Amino acid sequence: MSTPFPLGQPAFVTHVLDRAAHLRGNDAKLMAMEERGDTRAYVVHRDSLLVKHEAGGPRAELTIKEALALGANPGTIFLGLRNSAAVFGMGIGAPAADKLAGRTDAGLAELRGLAMQGALPVEQLSAIAMAKSLVNWHQRHGYCANCGTRTAMAQGGWKRDCPSCKAEHFPRTDPVVIMLVTRGDQCLLGRQKQFPAGMYSCLAGFVEAAETIEDAVRREIVEESGILCTDVRYYMTQPWPYPSSLMIACTATATSDDITVDLTELEDARWFSRDEAAQMLKREHPDGLLGPHPFAVAHHLLGRWLEGQS
Amino acid sequence: MSTPFPLGQPAFVTHVLDRAAHLRGNDAKLMAMEERGDTRAYVVHRDSLLVKHEAGGPRAELTIKEALALGANPGTIFLGLRNSAAVFGMGIGAPAADKLAGRTDAGLAELRGLAMQGALPVEQLSAIAMAKSLVNWHQRHGYCANCGTRTAMAQGGWKRDCPSCKAEHFPRTDPVVIMLVTRGDQCLLGRQKQFPAGMYSCLAGFVEAAETIEDAVRREIVEESGILCTDVRYYMTQPWPYPSSLMIACTATATSDDITVDLTELEDARWFSRDEAAQMLKREHPDGLLGPHPFAVAHHLLGRWLEGQS
Repeated sequence: MSTPFPLGQPAFVTHVLDRAAHLRGNDAKLMAMEERGDTRAYVVHRDSLLVKHEAGGPRAELTIKEALALGANPGTIFLGLRNSAAVFGMGIGAPAADKLAGRTDAGLAELRGLAMQGALPVEQLSAIAMAKSLVNWHQRHGYCANCGTRTAMAQGGWKRDCPSCKAEHFPRTDPVVIMLVTRGDQCLLGRQKQFPAGMYSCLAGFVEAAETIEDAVRREIVEESGILCTDVRYYMTQPWPYPSSLMIACTATATSDDITVDLTELEDARWFSRDEAAQMLKREHPDGLLGPHPFAVAHHLLGRWLEGQS
Repeated sequence: MSTPFPLGQPAFVTHVLDRAAHLRGNDAKLMAMEERGDTRAYVVHRDSLLVKHEAGGPRAELTIKEALALGANPGTIFLGLRNSAAVFGMGIGAPAADKLAGRTDAGLAELRGLAMQGALPVEQLSAIAMAKSLVNWHQRHGYCANCGTRTAMAQGGWKRDCPSCKAEHFPRTDPVVIMLVTRGDQCLLGRQKQFPAGMYSCLAGFVEAAETIEDAVRREIVEESGILCTDVRYYMTQPWPYPSSLMIACTATATSDDITVDLTELEDARWFSRDEAAQMLKREHPDGLLGPHPFAVAHHLLGRWLEGQS
């Protein structure tokens, strides 16, 4: 299968920005960088990106001038430096977003679709995920959780301060475990109701308070499928900007067979043979069943197992 | 060195509760469980635990009746089941906490000290960490970050709901990387200003938005010490309830030598030989330097390296 995401490299993991965190507190320098000609910005609206439509395809990396002209909010979040040039994240309000509807030269496009189609350079996706996570966080965290007062952005967008109780609020990153459970030549995959028709993928769930990664894997698998697991091993992580998760990909070995699906979480969960899983990844399954997209780390967990590497 | 935490088992990792998440939404059942004689609660105040002083030492596991009689707030957080008996977390307000000062049969004791001294059964620490993380979270998250309205506890304490904008808020767990960086027979350790005199430990830092574990390790090490790293490998995780972190312990190999300490983060960072590190863990260093306590995963990262396992 042709894919822009080689094995072991799902979307959002190719890190190219120098986060240059020491500049976050330097307002004068950040403002000066906004004025430079080589500065770029990604503009986020909910799950979509503002793109310019060009002959070569959509362009998400805009100049600050282009972003403002298209209605982006003037507040910027400093993402870091790429080859010494500054990259910012920006948001766009609903009225400005609505006004884009009639334009042919620019518009909003869903990030997931852009990434799945390979419409954006793979090496930009990590910075775009950063922009999306942070812009979404600011939009949903404008008030102090400690006292209810309106908070103010600080540290180039990496903090919000409460003027009243002085609480500091930092962007959240939620650890999530996602795991390929196998038993001999079979693997356990499940279906969430909102998945595309016929698609099955690895089970996943949030790591809870005071829980290790390994315990979270075992708990989620037993909660969702009734299957008991052992030998949990870490494979890799994928940042997942929906809204701001850290997907911690693991493998585990089942010690039981009988599946009891938790129907509040999943629509179905089944054992698949190696042959079937390969057909699903190659989109050649006789019943039209599909595996996860190469954009998601679940694809790489499965692919690695099928290649005998785990 | 005698320690209640064997190699590979720092504090807060020994998981004994069944979280029984399916009961969180069942208010009637949770209330009925509060009435049962075998139900227990941990009562948290900031970084301290409410304990009964008994002949055998402090007892943190209280009956609900004991907790209420000592001034704990009546709101409970359902932590899970231990041998079919319910375990809850409870908070205690500042006035009630102050009233405990004069008592000899009970009082507040700092969790860190209790754990370091081995004063509590090791198998209780995971549930205590859960209580601490969740009680602290509720105390600091009483308002909706989206609209500023007072929120209400839901799902047995595993959620807060906004009655106004309908936003749902979940307890946060912040992923943190902590890593042992080695270069041949030397390891890199640093000192934070607030450490006890002479103590050095592994460097650590929060995983940021849209960052993999491996990138976070490399970034934190270069930011704090100027050292470049490769070959980052996951070892284990330790839940760290200060206030609610997931410590992701890794090893990495340095590819440079010259240390430049970031003095905003650290007081010092140095290369230590294997021999010195062993003396520091054994508390036999000629200059009185100390390694991390067995309670912390940093101790286990170091111990494992000294034993030649990594």
